[in-house]
Amino acid sequence: MIIEEKPSLEVCLSPALLHLYDTNDAVVVIIDIFRATSTITAALHNGAKCVIPVASVAECITIGEQMPNSLTAGERDGKIAPGLQYGNSPLEYPPLFVKDKTLVLTTTNGTRLLHMIEGAATIVIGSFLNLSALCAYLLSQKKRVVLGCASWKDKFNLEDTLFAGAVAYELQHAFEIKDDSARAAKHLYQAASGQHLIEFLKDSSHYKRLSAYGLEKEMEYCVTPDLHPVVPYLKGKEIVVH
Amino acid sequence: MIIEEKPSLEVCLSPALLHLYDTNDAVVVIIDIFRATSTITAALHNGAKCVIPVASVAECITIGEQMPNSLTAGERDGKIAPGLQYGNSPLEYPPLFVKDKTLVLTTTNGTRLLHMIEGAATIVIGSFLNLSALCAYLLSQKKRVVLGCASWKDKFNLEDTLFAGAVAYELQHAFEIKDDSARAAKHLYQAASGQHLIEFLKDSSHYKRLSAYGLEKEMEYCVTPDLHPVVPYLKGKEIVVH
Repeated sequence: MIIEEKPSLEVCLSPALLHLYDTNDAVVVIIDIFRATSTITAALHNGAKCVIPVASVAECITIGEQMPNSLTAGERDGKIAPGLQYGNSPLEYPPLFVKDKTLVLTTTNGTRLLHMIEGAATIVIGSFLNLSALCAYLLSQKKRVVLGCASWKDKFNLEDTLFAGAVAYELQHAFEIKDDSARAAKHLYQAASGQHLIEFLKDSSHYKRLSAYGLEKEMEYCVTPDLHPVVPYLKGKEIVVH
Repeated sequence: MIIEEKPSLEVCLSPALLHLYDTNDAVVVIIDIFRATSTITAALHNGAKCVIPVASVAECITIGEQMPNSLTAGERDGKIAPGLQYGNSPLEYPPLFVKDKTLVLTTTNGTRLLHMIEGAATIVIGSFLNLSALCAYLLSQKKRVVLGCASWKDKFNLEDTLFAGAVAYELQHAFEIKDDSARAAKHLYQAASGQHLIEFLKDSSHYKRLSAYGLEKEMEYCVTPDLHPVVPYLKGKEIVVH
């Protein structure tokens, strides 16, 4: 009888802890639930050609000017950043609007984490919007998984960890839940799952910050599972689904 | 009517995240459940004169030689470190043995965190063994609290976070639970509290590592609340209770 060793699954709770994880030849999942990875997933499922994640507003403007059929997007303090055209909400990019366009998106936490990853087999985008599709993909790869929470300026946040916990929960029978972060994330998800996740998240830093900007509907959308069943991945400098 | 503002309570999950926290004039709690802060609490409650925490075995030996009536203690890989006299277990220091002695203790994670704290009003030692005494002390101080998890080589661990969650849970009505780490720790503690904590911790990195050395009894002791109701604090280079 051959017993196959299960690949490991780990959760990195903050970019400031990334150096503790071996991302070489692993599948790394970037998680920024409120709202970068939710928006990327929605825009690509709705037909965007690709998403180009950039760190600064200036870079976003420059690339947008050079790129035909592109949209520049990003927010600062809950409002469209000066010089850009659109915001960072999954609800802003319906199919008729975003189809075949390139979305040049500036986000701080998610983009920074994305650019920190070294040597990964694949870098993919995770959000509740593509939870089941992502889990099916991770299962199919049979490789080590590192779930990377973008967090908020390196500070642990509840919604990214909750999503990491959802993935750990779904995959626990096929993966070795390797570190205590993954175990804690799974416990957190189990503690939350008796209610709508947005209720659980109402007592969180990001919910409080973003609801002051009137973004409650957007956040509720971001924690609704499986509305956009695609698995975006990084291909060169672009995030694509095909 | 005067509404008093509640002091904040935050949880730093790893020394690698400490730079994100303002420890100036805060009460900082050092947490290293398996087993440094448990051992320190037990030894001092059992009558030790003081505990001197040091980072290396060599430093431990040097200070032990200079200090009358002292014991040198510390472990590496679950065994008494070569050159030292005793280990790092709260059960090793009963009253008749430890009374009036100075315990020179080398630990890696706890000592390192302790030495990283800057500007704190007070640095105190937290463990399940002094949970209620610690909470009563924190309530009495009416100052900001930062709970610092020593973790394991900067990696998040379950038992330190669980203890931070127990403190957050006990103090939530008198303090503002300020960051998502504190919220998550509290959720974790609530998820664990329907059972003996050691059952919850059996699926954790440290439990697995230390049980391979036969330290199950020690770990069970370390998560038993209120066996040693004292609040050790740092006074110069010594940890004392008086």
